[in-house]
Amino acid sequence: MSNFPVSVYARRIRHAAELANAAGLDGLVFGTGAELAYLTGSWLSTHERLTALVIPAQGTPSFLLPAVDRGELARSALGELDVEIVGWEDGADPHALAIEALRLSETAPSERGARVGLGATLTADHIFPLQEILRAAGRETVLASSLLKELFMRKDEEEIDQLRAAGKAIDQVHAQVPNLLRAGITERAVAQQLEQLILDVGHTAVDFVIVGSGPNGANAHHDFSDRQLTDGDVVVVDIGGTWGAGYHSDCTRTYVVGGPGAAVDPEYARLYQVLYQAQRAAVAAVRPGVTAASIDDVARDVISKAGYGAEFIHRTRHGIGLSTHEEPFIMAGNDLVLEPGMAFSIEPGIYVPGKFGARIEDIVVVTETGCESLNNNTHQLA
Amino acid sequence: MSNFPVSVYARRIRHAAELANAAGLDGLVFGTGAELAYLTGSWLSTHERLTALVIPAQGTPSFLLPAVDRGELARSALGELDVEIVGWEDGADPHALAIEALRLSETAPSERGARVGLGATLTADHIFPLQEILRAAGRETVLASSLLKELFMRKDEEEIDQLRAAGKAIDQVHAQVPNLLRAGITERAVAQQLEQLILDVGHTAVDFVIVGSGPNGANAHHDFSDRQLTDGDVVVVDIGGTWGAGYHSDCTRTYVVGGPGAAVDPEYARLYQVLYQAQRAAVAAVRPGVTAASIDDVARDVISKAGYGAEFIHRTRHGIGLSTHEEPFIMAGNDLVLEPGMAFSIEPGIYVPGKFGARIEDIVVVTETGCESLNNNTHQLA
Repeated sequence: MSNFPVSVYARRIRHAAELANAAGLDGLVFGTGAELAYLTGSWLSTHERLTALVIPAQGTPSFLLPAVDRGELARSALGELDVEIVGWEDGADPHALAIEALRLSETAPSERGARVGLGATLTADHIFPLQEILRAAGRETVLASSLLKELFMRKDEEEIDQLRAAGKAIDQVHAQVPNLLRAGITERAVAQQLEQLILDVGHTAVDFVIVGSGPNGANAHHDFSDRQLTDGDVVVVDIGGTWGAGYHSDCTRTYVVGGPGAAVDPEYARLYQVLYQAQRAAVAAVRPGVTAASIDDVARDVISKAGYGAEFIHRTRHGIGLSTHEEPFIMAGNDLVLEPGMAFSIEPGIYVPGKFGARIEDIVVVTETGCESLNNNTHQLA
Repeated sequence: MSNFPVSVYARRIRHAAELANAAGLDGLVFGTGAELAYLTGSWLSTHERLTALVIPAQGTPSFLLPAVDRGELARSALGELDVEIVGWEDGADPHALAIEALRLSETAPSERGARVGLGATLTADHIFPLQEILRAAGRETVLASSLLKELFMRKDEEEIDQLRAAGKAIDQVHAQVPNLLRAGITERAVAQQLEQLILDVGHTAVDFVIVGSGPNGANAHHDFSDRQLTDGDVVVVDIGGTWGAGYHSDCTRTYVVGGPGAAVDPEYARLYQVLYQAQRAAVAAVRPGVTAASIDDVARDVISKAGYGAEFIHRTRHGIGLSTHEEPFIMAGNDLVLEPGMAFSIEPGIYVPGKFGARIEDIVVVTETGCESLNNNTHQLA
């Protein structure tokens, strides 16, 4: 896992502490996962035992982990950051240690109420003990995510470079899909070859592979089956992998077995053109100052006007970064105003149960004037 | 993923509701993960969107999931159980739906206080919204895990059969390790072959592979590196995979490159015999009626008396089932009394930083009179 320079993580942790301070929080506690990776470069995973980054609003942050896991620190910036490492032994109370690391006694109780922010990925088995200790110390807990949203959603240049490289890599895999699809092969066999290709182009891990042929394409979360392809089948291929410091690719194209010249159901050909128009219009609408909901509207309007509104059963979709699904969500009701650096998928789909489905997906990054598409293969049936 | 008959899940859900009732809870909410798999056979994974099993103390349970994931239900018992399926569309408030499914208005407020139990794997981004709605309804939340402990810890016959088969499979892999270890090969190359073997013997997934040679064996959580083995190196090999309905294998043996006849550091030979005695004594001590802590004591006493107490840096270890690490934890301070059906690892280790390490691990299941070891390869250096 190639990480960013230590200075990037130091800047992010400082920024998080500033945001906590500004929000009147006494500090922040993050578990393992994307938030920890963003702040430290560490993808350490916790089992039943608490591993947590504790950022007091004032003072030195701490990183708690089971003492036996200390050897893992070398894989991230944690060893070099100005962060106190607390390796706890079995028998210790890690939740009490985490609260100690907040240095609450040194903190003046906030005028806006004494609160501590907890990271989104902390699980109930850690949250309840933390809440109990904090309650005894007169502190409420709040979800820290809304606070970090700002940091997470607006990607910096280092992050966009990683997403760009991941997008280019997954495009290379998609370019090879037409060579894999032929009558008689199963979805599973295609998927296995795709998994290998995803790694071959430089991803460090395969995140998911969806090969939905014929009626299976109508299940938006189908992965793959033993169904054999036949000539003229339409096949939804949605693939993604992990890149570099942990950023993700995610791209969907729809193919025809036998190539775009093969005989396709005329209803499908019509439906696909509707989807194509919707996806292109939504991408064209992305720019700073418009809301996430307005992008969803653009795609949905095109599809609804053509009579397929009931078959577009999901959001126009999701932000992407250190998680494959994160803010901003491109959906009705989301009044979030788009800003440069936000990265998300534009992936409308039309699903006709029992018959077929279609989806087109690009990752885009908002620029000063519009957006940059990180996926650039043809959007037509291939 | 081969599941148990639907009747097994129906029984487990009923039992959970009874326990909730007996504990004076209005109901239970579980996220995805081992708890959901135990209760329904489903390993559905949630991203940012709530997927939850809601079990009211009285009345029909519900299963909430994003509508687009409905196609996944066929993979578990959920379609056949007496559970109401609630597919929620984007734009809906899934947390409000989950609380609705608790049917609180139909429940007489408990005399022991109005509380709802939350599953251990629910994350902060779901817990905070659930707590907010429940607070408005006059309900506190508690961690449901202590309630379910009883169900999870005492494995039924179906579960023991799965753990037994997994144990036998991982023994088959260990039996081949001596053939893989030779001077010049890297830990990484050995690990790659082990990953293939773990699948070849019938596991559905590789959970982890640790190949810690020479000084790397002293890092209890090392996985593998590009270090080349040399003759006489000692190598800690700790491997595990997923089996059948989602149960896990986990077994450690320590090997010598060149075979047990190769020249081993005399200090190491002595240390290993201490570890061997400790592990054998701890397994022999397992029986119903003794505490988890007493088993840890047995292993620790042998090692401490030989002067290696400071080098045995972790618990004697962990329960195993649908998670690789779960209750009961075999550690100092755990007064839990062992009962038939409990399954856990006995894996003392001795780690001399910079030099070498050793660990021996078996999974055992408590029987009426003692325990059954699910791993049965030689415990001596091999």
